[in-house]
Amino acid sequence: MALSKVNLEEKFGQFSDHWNPRIVGRLNGQEVKIAKLKGEFVWHKHDEEDEMFLVISGNLKIELEDKILDLKEGEFAIIPKGVLHKPVATEEVKVMLFEPAGTINTGDTESELRQDKIKEL
Amino acid sequence: MALSKVNLEEKFGQFSDHWNPRIVGRLNGQEVKIAKLKGEFVWHKHDEEDEMFLVISGNLKIELEDKILDLKEGEFAIIPKGVLHKPVATEEVKVMLFEPAGTINTGDTESELRQDKIKEL
Repeated sequence: MALSKVNLEEKFGQFSDHWNPRIVGRLNGQEVKIAKLKGEFVWHKHDEEDEMFLVISGNLKIELEDKILDLKEGEFAIIPKGVLHKPVATEEVKVMLFEPAGTINTGDTESELRQDKIKEL
Repeated sequence: MALSKVNLEEKFGQFSDHWNPRIVGRLNGQEVKIAKLKGEFVWHKHDEEDEMFLVISGNLKIELEDKILDLKEGEFAIIPKGVLHKPVATEEVKVMLFEPAGTINTGDTESELRQDKIKEL
């Protein structure tokens, strides 16, 4: 990617599907992704990757085995590797994700929601 | 850090000095930092680390050798390792930074702005 700035709203405007992240930046072996989420995702974990969810707009609940994180705009959570979690969004949420390159969205869970080819915007 | 959410505004409210990042998250060998910037920083580069600046509020200019990136709220830039840059903020800017753990704010430049002991919030 050229050394230029990225405007998140402009990138969010380029797609409308849910649970299908797009790559908007790469650094230090990590990827910056954005996604629109709506509805319930699947319970899953990432055996090797910590994953950060930063809410850009909306309200994202991340269900854990023992509690629920309720994230609003300007809030983030880091889900450590190995921790089961299920993102849930009653209304559409825009999130930024920060995780190692190649992280699979559904982790170790078989699901039709798996996205193997993440597009770059 | 416990598995709980982080509210950026709440963290920004815990300090007021400029050019002194605080750590608010760790994942995959990387650190999430926040900082308040005002005035001119020093020209520097990081020989081994790419560095991401995400503007949470305000207007941040990042001067490069051949152009200036003008970042507003909701915009980010990734400065690759080895690239000389100088952040400049006419008015106070709140930023989130992503970079490898241990990254020195002033890179390879000797400066009294260097912060060797980054606090964790």
